[in-house]
Order: sequence, then C-alpha cells, then structure tokens
Amino acid sequence: MISLSDLQQRIAAGALSPDAAIAQSLAAIAAQDKTIGAFVCDDAQARAQDAGPLRGIAVGIKDIIDTADFPTEMGAQIYRGHQPRADAPVVMALKRAGATIIGKTTTTAFASNDPTATINPHNHAHTPGGSSSGSAAAVAAGMIPLALGTQTGGSVIRPASFCGVAAIKPSYRLLPTVGVKCFSWTLDTVGLFGAGVRDVACGLSAMTNRPELLVPGSLAAPRVGVVTQAFADAPDASSAAALQTASRAAEQAGASVRELAMPEIVAEAWRIHTVVQEFEAHQSLAWEYRDNYEAMPPLLRGRLDESKGFTPADYDAAMDVTLRARQALSAVFDEVDVIVTLSAPGTAPEGLSSTGDARYNRLWTLMGVPCVNVPTLIDGGLPVGVTVIAKFGADAQALAAGAFVEDALKR
Amino acid sequence: MISLSDLQQRIAAGALSPDAAIAQSLAAIAAQDKTIGAFVCDDAQARAQDAGPLRGIAVGIKDIIDTADFPTEMGAQIYRGHQPRADAPVVMALKRAGATIIGKTTTTAFASNDPTATINPHNHAHTPGGSSSGSAAAVAAGMIPLALGTQTGGSVIRPASFCGVAAIKPSYRLLPTVGVKCFSWTLDTVGLFGAGVRDVACGLSAMTNRPELLVPGSLAAPRVGVVTQAFADAPDASSAAALQTASRAAEQAGASVRELAMPEIVAEAWRIHTVVQEFEAHQSLAWEYRDNYEAMPPLLRGRLDESKGFTPADYDAAMDVTLRARQALSAVFDEVDVIVTLSAPGTAPEGLSSTGDARYNRLWTLMGVPCVNVPTLIDGGLPVGVTVIAKFGADAQALAAGAFVEDALKR
Repeated sequence: MISLSDLQQRIAAGALSPDAAIAQSLAAIAAQDKTIGAFVCDDAQARAQDAGPLRGIAVGIKDIIDTADFPTEMGAQIYRGHQPRADAPVVMALKRAGATIIGKTTTTAFASNDPTATINPHNHAHTPGGSSSGSAAAVAAGMIPLALGTQTGGSVIRPASFCGVAAIKPSYRLLPTVGVKCFSWTLDTVGLFGAGVRDVACGLSAMTNRPELLVPGSLAAPRVGVVTQAFADAPDASSAAALQTASRAAEQAGASVRELAMPEIVAEAWRIHTVVQEFEAHQSLAWEYRDNYEAMPPLLRGRLDESKGFTPADYDAAMDVTLRARQALSAVFDEVDVIVTLSAPGTAPEGLSSTGDARYNRLWTLMGVPCVNVPTLIDGGLPVGVTVIAKFGADAQALAAGAFVEDALKR
Repeated sequence: MISLSDLQQRIAAGALSPDAAIAQSLAAIAAQDKTIGAFVCDDAQARAQDAGPLRGIAVGIKDIIDTADFPTEMGAQIYRGHQPRADAPVVMALKRAGATIIGKTTTTAFASNDPTATINPHNHAHTPGGSSSGSAAAVAAGMIPLALGTQTGGSVIRPASFCGVAAIKPSYRLLPTVGVKCFSWTLDTVGLFGAGVRDVACGLSAMTNRPELLVPGSLAAPRVGVVTQAFADAPDASSAAALQTASRAAEQAGASVRELAMPEIVAEAWRIHTVVQEFEAHQSLAWEYRDNYEAMPPLLRGRLDESKGFTPADYDAAMDVTLRARQALSAVFDEVDVIVTLSAPGTAPEGLSSTGDARYNRLWTLMGVPCVNVPTLIDGGLPVGVTVIAKFGADAQALAAGAFVEDALKR
C-alpha cells in the first residue's frame, strides 16, 4: 500500500516530487485496475498541485460524491453520464489542501446493496465489501494513498475491514454531506480510507484545517471498553479472534481493558436503525423509486418495496430512541476513553453477489460517533479489522487510540 | 389571495374541477407576473392530477430547489440553464400528495442577499423581502395558493411578513433539504407560504402524511409568552404595534399572555448564528466562491470575503452555544405553549436594493423550532406579521396557536 504520511515526508524532504507521487498512482492504476475494477473513471493527465499539505497525494472519490471534472453516476443506470455542475465541499476541501483528484471509485448503486464488479485485492474471488467498494479496494491494492467513501450503515468500516485498510468514519457532520447523493440525512457520513491510521488522520486534518486531528508523537494508553454487540448475534471465529487479538495487544501495551455492556436503550437503537434509514431513503430516493421504478437497481428496489410500510409515527419513535441512546452512550464515555468492537462479522464473503453484512457498524453510524477501522489480522489470506470508537466530537481521541492499537499489534 | 383550504373544499364538493383551479392560477400568472416578477419560469400547459389531498393546487417552488421538469438556476449566473436530473424530495412529496408544480419562483442568488427584481404586491416600490422573494410575492398577489421557500436566517418568515401572507418554517428536518442548494446545513429549512395559517397547515400535513398537523376545528387558548428580542435592538413602530396588537387579540380571545425574558445563553445563540451560517457557507459554496469568484453575486461575495476568518474553533464554540441554548429554550416551553415575537423590524423597506433584515428571525432558525408568520396589521399600505413559535417538534402546536391568533385578530 502507499502510505500518505510516508509520501508527505519524502515530498517534504525533497526525495520525491509531487508529480512523481501522482505518476506512481497513475502507473499503479494502469497496471492493476483492469483486474481490480476499483475505478469508474480516472484522469490519466492528472498532475500535482504546487502547495498544500496534500500536494502529491492522489485521491479517489466515491462515485456518489459530486465532481465538476468527472461524471458522477451513483453506480446506477439512471445516472449514466450524469455531470454535476459543482464539486462537493469535501472534494473542494481536498483540492484546497493541495490534493489531486485522480478519479472516481466504484460504488454500489446509490450506496445500497447492489454490488459492483470490484474484487478484493487480497483474494479475487471475494467481495471488497460495500458500498464504498472501489475506495477500499483502490487503497488496498496500492493504487492510491487516500480515498473518500460514505457510510449509512457500514459502508466505510466494513470494506476497510474486508480489504485490510485503515479508515475513519468521522463524527456526524464533521465533513459536510452537501453534494453527496443522499440515502439517509440522519446517517450519511463521509469517511476516509488510507494505508494506516496516521494516514487517514493526516487526510482528515488537512481537509478540515484541524491540526489537533493529527496523531501525536507520543500516545497515552487509553481506557478501553470492549463491546461484543451481543444484540447483533455472534461473529465468525475470525472476527472474534480479531477482537481478542486487538484487546490483548492494547492491554500488553499498557491500556486498561475491560468488557463493557451497552445500556438497553443502545441495543434498542441498533434495532431501529433500519426504520430511520429506510423511512428517510423513501424520501431521498423518491424520484428514482417512484418515477424510475423499472430502472432501479433490483436489490435496492426490493428493499424499498419491503420498507414502504414505515409511518411517520414509527420514524418519530425511532428518532426518540436515537436521542435517548446517544445520551446513554455519552455517559458510557465517562468510564472509558474508547470502545473497541467488531468491524464485520468475519472476513470478506466469497463471491460478488453480496457486499457483506453491516450489523456491527450501523449502531455507531446512528450514534454519530467517530469510528476508526484498524486492520488486525489475516485469516485464510483475508484481513479482519476492529473498530475503535470515541465519543461524539472526539475524533482526535478515536484516531490516537486507533494508532495506539495499530502500534500495539505491530509489537 | 387564493386560499388552499377553500379550493380543497370547493373541489371536494364538486363545485370546482381540479383543472379549473390550476387554470385559475395560470390565468393569474399570465395577467400579473409581468408586473410582479415572482416567477423564473412556469408551465403554461400545467394540468391537475387526478387524486390526492392537493389535487388542483398549483404550487410555486423556490428556484434553489431541484426540479426534474424545470431548470434550477439558484438566482445566479453560474447556474444559468442548469437542469437537475431529479426532483428534490419536497417536490416529490407535493406531487405524491396530488399537487401540480406550476413553476419556479425567484430567489436571491444562492438564497443570500443579492436581490431579485420581484416587487411587493402591496406597494410596487417596495421589496417583497428575501430570499424566498418570488414565493411570498406569488401567494400575496393571488397567483397561487401554495409555495415553497427556504430559510437560513429569515428567508421565509420575513418575506411572509412583508407580503402579508401566512408561512411556516417547520421544525428542522421535518422536511428534508435533500436536493435544495445548501447554504448552511445546520440552518437551511424548507418552508411553506399560503393565504392563511390553515392553508400552510394543509400543505405541510399533505406533504408529510401527518394528519395531526391540520388545524383542529376547536382551538384551545394557549399560554403565550411575548418575546421582544431586546438583544436584537428595538423594532420600528409598525412591528412594535403588530406585536402588541397580536398579544392583545390573543388575550381577549382567552389566551394567557405574559412577557417572557430569554435566558442569556439564548441571546448568546442569537449572536453566534452568523458564525455557524458563514463557516458552513464557506464550505457549501466553496466551488462557487473559489472556482467562480468573478461570477459570484456581489453582495454574497463581499459577505464571504468578510467572513473568511472564522476558524474551526470559532465554529465549535458556536455549536456548543447552540446546543446549550436549545436546551435552555426547551425548558422555557415548560412555562408557555408558544412564544409570540416579531417577524421583521417593520414593514418592507422601500426600493429593491435590500431584501430587509433577518435579525428577529435568525435565532429561531438556529434553534430549529417551528415558526408561523401570522399577518397582523397594515401600516401605510404595507403588511406586518408576528411569529408564533412552539418547541422543537411541536409543529402542530405552532400551527394551532397561529390559527388561534389569526382568528383572534379577525374579531
């Protein structure tokens, strides 16, 4: 993989020109993407910018995020050839920080369940996960050092776990979702993929002008609460082992680690995530679903057919649970600095017919809290990660603790 | 003006065909809009739908809201001829309820300060207010029974007050802002204009499938707190008189009325509204401002030039004040059912160089609470309204109390 922090250091030291860094990504895309299928389109003429912390950094943008210089097709036939007028704010934030937008990465249709043809770089017979399939696969295959994805259920953390890359789903609305195709306005969150935790921290810090998000040189040992999410059923052996491995490594590196039960209202929030998501999706995708029913991707259409029955009263009740669960979760963070939990039920499933299961991710999306995927182990040739979570707004803490766990695993 | 409720009753009784109702609006537009200038474009072939509570209701849509059948030009040269692929969810909600989208109404550029050429139907030498200029003027001139606008500072309630029409800015996110050009994602709120409070209640109820938003036949007398917003300076005599007139009328109709001081943190929230709005606008409009600086509308460009200095720390502090003020305001609603306050500093200013001042509106937008403009009196030929406000999520209460005040003023 290409490390963003490593590129930055070599560029700053004059050992690598920004244009050579971009050229390295273009060459990697040319060599590999016919096999991996992570890009919808790319700019073979891409060049580095002159200045900014991300000069020389090639970034892939999930194809539900508006770009003025590339079509934005939402992974869907209905938007074939669609050309937005403007760049989304997150794209402008990357450009302002000096990054080069190198292309658009594949997305499941409307960031839902209908898979792309992208394959997992670790085992070509397996899914890279979704919905941010191309962004995770492009970083994992060593084509680019940074990519943007989005998460409504588990669409950043799950593909990161399946592809063995670091990722952050920041606190809700730290990054604007303006110009990003909406599925659920309460849930949709823009996230970043990179080779390691420090790499995504660099990217997020540069995009937001927040130096406090950079991982500090010296890391305090965090108080860790391990959460198994029993309300979401048991994981496969590989994910259970990853959670145990990461917990033990953190403990041996000096963290205090204990198992933590979630308040019942938080488990209830896990159950009603679907109500919030689907009730809002029926509005967000009303034009597509009602005026373009035949052209809708089949899995998403079926899902919307099934969820037609949710009423405003169901939604109001779900939003009430959400608010109460956020308060209860906030109190949990009086006792621990971070939660460590499962990133996925196991390694990436075989085949490309499913992008896997978001059941361990969706609660945290609904809670709006920052989540960092830390690649943890390889099982049968496929990666598994864990998720490090801090309280709402404490993205710096989530990143620092993620780096702490990442370092501990390397010992 | 054309009353939506009246049209509904006549259509239900068979006294008016839905197509005749639409034809009435088309004729009014043809007769008047050359003078008023409320529409950017309209559909002279528009016809009624067959079913739905809003069949026969012609609706104007502010031109920052995406429509698949009309261009969406944002009142700005940069978007001249821009044609969105999809209808925004609020447009689809109107169509699903049976309404006919009759055209797009004028907006100040990007819903900011640069005025449109629209005039006030009550006095052609005066502004109709902004930013939802066309929507307010089109309803006031009797061209259409319902229109959509948006409010980030005071862009629904202020033009409603200036034009003498009823309006509701609902609770934050009761109506999705998906497909609406973003200025500030924490503030932007879609609102409705109609001839009377019951008319906007009918529209909002139909759009959201929430029958509880309809104004009930029998109205309980509310506990009213009168708020002068002294932190925002004193109003003109006309607005001061409107607040007194509405308060007295409510009291005489049986409401308990008392003056209410706001907690200091709420006044502080009034002061930091600008920080939230401008910090987010620099991101929302980054492509326009940075890549199209020369083509930017001059007042907005100057405003963004001036507000470049806000930092993430300023923004975080402002969001912290916002959350604490929302909690404090919520406690105020333990003592009163609704707040009644000023809708504008006075009647519509003369000339078209300014759309007026949002200083009495912006606090409530930041608080996310439902606001209803009730036309109150005419001073020098120009209308003034008051705002009736309920707690977050209590849109039904705001509408019922708004109707109570409206009825009281007619006695």
